[in-house]
Amino acid sequence: MATEREQVREPRSGAPYKRNYGSRTRSQSEEHKLVNGSSYRSRNNSSAAQGGRSKRESKRTPVRIIPLGGLNEIGKNMTVFECSNDMFILDCGLAFPDSDMPGVDIVIPDFTYVEGNRDRVRGIVITHGHEDHIGGLAYLLKKINVPVYGTKMTLGLIRGKLEEHDILKQVKLIEVEPRKIVKMGCMAVEFIKVNHSIPGAVGMAIHTPAGIIVHTGDFKVDFSPIDGEIIDLARFGELGSRGVLALMADSTNAERCGFTSSERTVGDSFEKLFHRAQGRRIIIATFSSNVHRVQQVVDQAQRFGRKIAVFGRSMIHVIETAIELGYLNVPKGMIIDIDEMNRYPDEKIVLITTGSQGEPLSALARMAMNSHKKVSITPNDFIIISAKPIPGNEKYVMRVVNELMKSGAEVIYESMYEVHVSGHACQEELKLIQALTKPKFFIPVHGEYKHLVKHAEVARSMGVPEENILIANIGDVIETDGQSMRVVSQVPSGRVMVDGLGVGDVGSIVLRDRKNLAQDGLIIVVIGIERATNTLVAGPDIISRGFVYVRESEELIDEARQVLIKVLQGCSSHDLKEWDTLKAKLRDVLSDFIYEKTKRRPMILPIIMEV
Amino acid sequence: MATEREQVREPRSGAPYKRNYGSRTRSQSEEHKLVNGSSYRSRNNSSAAQGGRSKRESKRTPVRIIPLGGLNEIGKNMTVFECSNDMFILDCGLAFPDSDMPGVDIVIPDFTYVEGNRDRVRGIVITHGHEDHIGGLAYLLKKINVPVYGTKMTLGLIRGKLEEHDILKQVKLIEVEPRKIVKMGCMAVEFIKVNHSIPGAVGMAIHTPAGIIVHTGDFKVDFSPIDGEIIDLARFGELGSRGVLALMADSTNAERCGFTSSERTVGDSFEKLFHRAQGRRIIIATFSSNVHRVQQVVDQAQRFGRKIAVFGRSMIHVIETAIELGYLNVPKGMIIDIDEMNRYPDEKIVLITTGSQGEPLSALARMAMNSHKKVSITPNDFIIISAKPIPGNEKYVMRVVNELMKSGAEVIYESMYEVHVSGHACQEELKLIQALTKPKFFIPVHGEYKHLVKHAEVARSMGVPEENILIANIGDVIETDGQSMRVVSQVPSGRVMVDGLGVGDVGSIVLRDRKNLAQDGLIIVVIGIERATNTLVAGPDIISRGFVYVRESEELIDEARQVLIKVLQGCSSHDLKEWDTLKAKLRDVLSDFIYEKTKRRPMILPIIMEV
Repeated sequence: MATEREQVREPRSGAPYKRNYGSRTRSQSEEHKLVNGSSYRSRNNSSAAQGGRSKRESKRTPVRIIPLGGLNEIGKNMTVFECSNDMFILDCGLAFPDSDMPGVDIVIPDFTYVEGNRDRVRGIVITHGHEDHIGGLAYLLKKINVPVYGTKMTLGLIRGKLEEHDILKQVKLIEVEPRKIVKMGCMAVEFIKVNHSIPGAVGMAIHTPAGIIVHTGDFKVDFSPIDGEIIDLARFGELGSRGVLALMADSTNAERCGFTSSERTVGDSFEKLFHRAQGRRIIIATFSSNVHRVQQVVDQAQRFGRKIAVFGRSMIHVIETAIELGYLNVPKGMIIDIDEMNRYPDEKIVLITTGSQGEPLSALARMAMNSHKKVSITPNDFIIISAKPIPGNEKYVMRVVNELMKSGAEVIYESMYEVHVSGHACQEELKLIQALTKPKFFIPVHGEYKHLVKHAEVARSMGVPEENILIANIGDVIETDGQSMRVVSQVPSGRVMVDGLGVGDVGSIVLRDRKNLAQDGLIIVVIGIERATNTLVAGPDIISRGFVYVRESEELIDEARQVLIKVLQGCSSHDLKEWDTLKAKLRDVLSDFIYEKTKRRPMILPIIMEV
Repeated sequence: MATEREQVREPRSGAPYKRNYGSRTRSQSEEHKLVNGSSYRSRNNSSAAQGGRSKRESKRTPVRIIPLGGLNEIGKNMTVFECSNDMFILDCGLAFPDSDMPGVDIVIPDFTYVEGNRDRVRGIVITHGHEDHIGGLAYLLKKINVPVYGTKMTLGLIRGKLEEHDILKQVKLIEVEPRKIVKMGCMAVEFIKVNHSIPGAVGMAIHTPAGIIVHTGDFKVDFSPIDGEIIDLARFGELGSRGVLALMADSTNAERCGFTSSERTVGDSFEKLFHRAQGRRIIIATFSSNVHRVQQVVDQAQRFGRKIAVFGRSMIHVIETAIELGYLNVPKGMIIDIDEMNRYPDEKIVLITTGSQGEPLSALARMAMNSHKKVSITPNDFIIISAKPIPGNEKYVMRVVNELMKSGAEVIYESMYEVHVSGHACQEELKLIQALTKPKFFIPVHGEYKHLVKHAEVARSMGVPEENILIANIGDVIETDGQSMRVVSQVPSGRVMVDGLGVGDVGSIVLRDRKNLAQDGLIIVVIGIERATNTLVAGPDIISRGFVYVRESEELIDEARQVLIKVLQGCSSHDLKEWDTLKAKLRDVLSDFIYEKTKRRPMILPIIMEV
């Protein structure tokens, strides 16, 4: 039997690929049957193909859509689709922690519902390889081991993740090309090429007994993409002609009117800037996953006769993966080792690096703060930040820009230079997808509430009736039988925090304590009590951290001790037996004293030692 | 003798105000002599009046400019000017703490230098009443009590601050009108009307023996300001004709090309939006100090027959002050009490509130989170956020927008609605000031490094020679004798953190501890040792906070205790005598154990009780 990879490649060679949907004679397992999408028509949704809008149709097997992330938030995208006894998952991403989650590394969706239905899960399909779509996958796969389907580039990036978590060998990764279909029990998922800020991005057409559900994934419409592959508008149109029951579409840029610029415009800007940077070293920071952006740097480097040195762990990893998989074309010998740099003059080098979001530990930030081992910024550096700050990161980015400029470098970071374009569709592109798919129902996804609301307005302006638009929440169980669509119930959902090796062991109490500790620090009061006699035998000792600089506040601490001694002197031996009451009393008295003296509320932690 | 206030008003009535510069016959004290600026010409700087550019001139008494805040940062603006034995201070603002200063309330400049020179300080002049220009004043006045000079509005706001700090009675506040001059020993400071997002804003012309130094303060050029008073371009031009030695100008918007829109455009937008909001309640959030913005809300409310209710402590305070001082005209009976609101239907009310920056405790944020006592948001609310998020606040603002929308309200927050304009000059306005003042030297101020660099580029493009542009740092002592200008030395400068009543007692160690505590929490290990015998008599006990949810991690804590017990069992009585060594050992062993198990690094605090 051919491997999955070979099977999928077959159609490329021109040989007709055998339709195997519904066939039970092939030896391969049910989960990864692949067919050509363009000729696909399921038995069950043939009525949907007639438009799915006739009220005379008989009721069809209902389908449920359960978003577990990505609604009312940017991040941790994950949606469950289920029908009869079958279920599959679309994407499994992470979110980055907010400022109110100190110490948390990443946030992943709550998997309770899929864990409780593990036997029904037929697989996971992934739209593209960004962290907010694949970053939770390793955690999920440790709970339920099912096959993962994605394009070549997406799987390349997933492979790296699973290796990090040491579970690559246990997981079945199955490559799927656009226009191919994956069978998921009574549903089938068709991959459709879209444009985005990472290669190998797809939307999905989910063929179900109730009708076709189109999910755009993250997308934009780029008529001059770097890899030459324009979003498969024709296929969206074909599906629209057959009848799309529901559209789920990317709302990230729903607030922006017009059309997102082509990635190619960035290349034009690069060309101008490479001219301007003549005689100087060029440093370009961008998102590591934006392979097409990197390709444009490579192209300009070639034109201007420069070598490329790559900085940042993820940048190195993605560039290696992209070259290996054929997504990035780099002339032989162009990429040089970091240690080789000093063999070339400044004007012959381009540095590509991570850190375009100002991340404090990134290569660019370390260069800016003069703490990078291999690179010192000089007035002969020309630095391009080819990205836009993600909300919340503005200050970090600006700090890095300021520091780079202080070393005398010229820094290009402003929108006017057009060194960045978004990967997400603006309003006119959203309208184009609405026009092509002509959905009966519309569910805006991938956005905060305000994005979803704006996207709903766009759909309304295109003629989708108000009552057919559903702004959902994570955990909502959205059910449709092809006639109507509504939220019928809820399943557990939310954010699970990952801190170090701990998944979910940091909850609201731990976070509350961390935030309190950060605000005004803490004061520890220790006393020793002899249990047998209920007498005070040690203390009170006071220790503080993060409250005041102790050496300069000895007087205050001394006074505080006197206050506590007075309380303890007033205690009978009975009082000294009731430890909880005693602790509460010490806490209250000290808290009031400290607040009066300092107007601060440190956490106060009385500890009684039994001697 | 007339009061200061009367003195300043005198010229208004048309009576010629006697020039008193240099006069020592008047009974008033040297510090607050006021003259008409337009006719002012000091003896010393008469040569500067010839252009100040001739190399043949004899050397003049040098003047020193010492920025103590506001350079390489947005906030805590403060500059010292000194000449011979005289010194005065221009502005004394605060900065808001960064995310790396948990628990800190505000940040003020380091006053060490002015405290050490208290006898030389002749007074403080204030350009306008924004927090970043007056917020540090009360702290400074507690250290050195000198007269404070400002326009009526500025003093009105300062009065509120000093009252809060209970020092209003000790401080001499002297009102100065534009075109008036305050004498500061051998220097004299002339107030010049500018436009800004607060009434009563002025720039300053500092007449010194070395020449005239123009400081714009925060400014924009508004040809149709709400109060009808256009920036005094003529005076800037007159000074330019006489010869300006140095220009110090606002760099906030130096990155933006073009011209900042007039405040009046916001009124036009308000009018359109009030039409659109017909039948609904209107809620407008803006900066409390933007009195002209509030005036435009009042004007529209009058036109549309709505009453106004005011929310937020600072909004109430500023509106009261502005009405009292005549900066805000509100028809009688238009402002209603919050408790009266329910007597009016939604369509007859406008709420004006604080919270345009999403501040979690602001009135608007509490309305959004459904925790405001008096206001519940409904689908019949039309909400306008008339502000732009200050960098770092984007996420807070967006959270509030999302929550307001979830209650069904329509929220206007995007730049396309033109419900906000900046209060700072863009590049074309900066050029205008350069063209009018034609300075010999240029010092960009009020901005991060990147702003200062852009502003320097603007000045270069206007013909200021590269070597005559100085990008300075706080603490730099900039000296000029009219011929040259350079940094000659440094004085102490930096950020002093205010937390509760404590000023400066939170330093780098306390902050480091707070940040560590926030990251992974802490683990406390307590043991009791009998000093006489050096034997362990209690513990080890383990207490944690902000580390893991203890009830779910009992096993881990138990294991940790076992690890510690093993260490203690291996200790000789000599080891138990060396407490520092013992503590270090307990900390290291526990830290390694915890990291191996959790990949976290909580703060570990061993406490030894002497029993």
